[in-house]
Amino acid sequence: MTTVSWVEGSQDGGFGIENLPYGVFSRPGELPRVGVAIGDRVLDLAEMSAAGLVEDRRYFASGSLNAFMVAGRAAWQANRERVTELLSDEVYRGRVEPHLIPVADVDMQRPFEVADYVDFYSSEHHATNAGRILRPKGEPLPPNWKHMPVAYHGRSGTVYPTRTPIIRPSGQRRAKDDPEPSFGPSRRLDFEAEVGFVVGVPSPAGRGVPTAAFRDHVFGFVLVNDWSARDLQMWESQPLGPFLGKSFATSVSSWVVPVAALEPARVSPPVQDPAPLPYLRCDEPWGLDLHLEVLINGRVAARPKFASMYWTPPQQLAHATVNGAPLRTGDLFASGTVSGPEREERGCLLELSWNGQEPLLLDDGTERMFLEDGDTVTLRAQAPGAAGSRVALGEVTGTVHPAPS
Amino acid sequence: MTTVSWVEGSQDGGFGIENLPYGVFSRPGELPRVGVAIGDRVLDLAEMSAAGLVEDRRYFASGSLNAFMVAGRAAWQANRERVTELLSDEVYRGRVEPHLIPVADVDMQRPFEVADYVDFYSSEHHATNAGRILRPKGEPLPPNWKHMPVAYHGRSGTVYPTRTPIIRPSGQRRAKDDPEPSFGPSRRLDFEAEVGFVVGVPSPAGRGVPTAAFRDHVFGFVLVNDWSARDLQMWESQPLGPFLGKSFATSVSSWVVPVAALEPARVSPPVQDPAPLPYLRCDEPWGLDLHLEVLINGRVAARPKFASMYWTPPQQLAHATVNGAPLRTGDLFASGTVSGPEREERGCLLELSWNGQEPLLLDDGTERMFLEDGDTVTLRAQAPGAAGSRVALGEVTGTVHPAPS
Repeated sequence: MTTVSWVEGSQDGGFGIENLPYGVFSRPGELPRVGVAIGDRVLDLAEMSAAGLVEDRRYFASGSLNAFMVAGRAAWQANRERVTELLSDEVYRGRVEPHLIPVADVDMQRPFEVADYVDFYSSEHHATNAGRILRPKGEPLPPNWKHMPVAYHGRSGTVYPTRTPIIRPSGQRRAKDDPEPSFGPSRRLDFEAEVGFVVGVPSPAGRGVPTAAFRDHVFGFVLVNDWSARDLQMWESQPLGPFLGKSFATSVSSWVVPVAALEPARVSPPVQDPAPLPYLRCDEPWGLDLHLEVLINGRVAARPKFASMYWTPPQQLAHATVNGAPLRTGDLFASGTVSGPEREERGCLLELSWNGQEPLLLDDGTERMFLEDGDTVTLRAQAPGAAGSRVALGEVTGTVHPAPS
Repeated sequence: MTTVSWVEGSQDGGFGIENLPYGVFSRPGELPRVGVAIGDRVLDLAEMSAAGLVEDRRYFASGSLNAFMVAGRAAWQANRERVTELLSDEVYRGRVEPHLIPVADVDMQRPFEVADYVDFYSSEHHATNAGRILRPKGEPLPPNWKHMPVAYHGRSGTVYPTRTPIIRPSGQRRAKDDPEPSFGPSRRLDFEAEVGFVVGVPSPAGRGVPTAAFRDHVFGFVLVNDWSARDLQMWESQPLGPFLGKSFATSVSSWVVPVAALEPARVSPPVQDPAPLPYLRCDEPWGLDLHLEVLINGRVAARPKFASMYWTPPQQLAHATVNGAPLRTGDLFASGTVSGPEREERGCLLELSWNGQEPLLLDDGTERMFLEDGDTVTLRAQAPGAAGSRVALGEVTGTVHPAPS
């Protein structure tokens, strides 16, 4: 039986009753609190719990999702079922409707406090393209790539909520023909279209999280733009990997989509050959049929498909913890750039312009090699939801501001 | 005029009145609070502020140093002067002595909550040795190395206080002759002797912290053991740098030595050629004459000297923020392995055993290539203090436990 919400128009646009993502919002003069998106409204869960309509106000009268995220899967599931009931059964309409606020009237905040931030490199197409561009003399994929989801730690202090201005970073760069490195604003500012997941339930030190335990720890998914300064990154990355080329800003979407809302989007990931080591094997298909869209100033720049990712979220989590590193509530894991085999599926300008050699033409008639001051980059994504619906990840957007003089 | 403390024996052992490091301690059944080490005692600052002897109890009746660290340089300086007065002027002895507790009677806790953790690679001797060992075909130092303090982000969730058991990590490794990678406990477990500094005062996003502003942001120094699984690290590090080979554990000392206590230890660092870019220049000498000692099961394994580090702490901080990344209270920056030109000055087994080719002989007659289960590694350090004294960094120690079966 299909569940239908009494919230008018809520079935359109990907924020219907099949989605119910969590976020943190505030209204002028009020403290931030937790809400759920439905259509173009936010359901105020702090007020709902104060009114006795949902359980446990401790979770929701909070400036972050962390308290609710740590409560665990049974609490997430119970609240999701209760909110579904309240928003679909007309009997509750009179009591619930006063707690629905137009999204347009609220400010969305950073949804959770980030503990550690890990960024993977899990698209074979992206890794192959990046290898061809950055290491043209060698094999495009490093020898470890098909054996493990390669990753590095990013800077959690610069994970920002959507709409945070992106200040063009300065740093050292040295192109091939430069006799010496020079200092100045990045000339090769880029975005990276990624999908991230956030941990709710911690894990103990010294034991890994098996792929089958993914749902016991992970609260939900967000869209991530891992802004990158390619000139800084290329000069600094030997031998310890990216640092300042990434650490100035990473933007995340306001709405955290529950794992449960993406169950209908699960598909078989690409065949893995060679077969991964036992700790990376997964009994269930965990590819996700998410269709991403990258817009520069409102014009479509790319349409990457997450289903083509080689390594899946449960494999990423199992790998990151197999050495005994514990999980903390708020740990954020991002997929790495999502790129497909076609040019229009490439998830960053490094690939779209082939490192500044082939301009990307936008349909406003402008061309881009890399990002210009004033450019606004927006990521969106949709997946198939329950009962033929569409489930959207909330958009993540940011505008490039000039480097301070 | 030399200041002398009335605390008996406090002038010996590096924890005299010239040091006065901060830590967080607890006694059975009591909440943790902030104290200062003097000789073999801890001065309970929470009780002292409750008794009106030092200012502002909000800082000290806390389970971490973060509240005091964010208070800033003037507060740090005022408290240091007041504690010096209280511990040297006999007139206070009667009122202060009841708040001195033997260190042996307390449990030391993690001194601060870590925000982001950055690990540098700032010893030329270490970087050269590591380059020769790990990349024997190429130049030992990468082209960027003399232009910037190379670094990467580590995992802040696995920064542990001294004495935390170190569980041998498992993971993928693939030696040169292995046809395929295999999975299991690391066979090349190592320590890295490092010195770290911790940020007290945050900085705004979009602006860097100049070398001259180091003292306005940095609260103090700790000893750091950045435990490393060399086999995991070597197989995983291309192209994004170390990940699981480092992220299982990093140990820090209990006592944070104020920047002011190390002023007498400042020396000229090695000459930097080529001259660094302007943002990395420093008007003051910021080498530190710290003598480190590494012990394996109580036997001296190495004696690295921090004065030989090529890049200095203010340069590290200026570099890490030059792209606009803000600082947060609790940001931890470690130096990278401290190694000197002599074999006995090498700060890790990778160098001491030349990657398992030349056993390190300990004076208990045993040999080490890498760490064995049951091994205890202890780092210590001393520097010249004011008035001919010695200032110690508190030791950091950890014992290797077998991988869970």
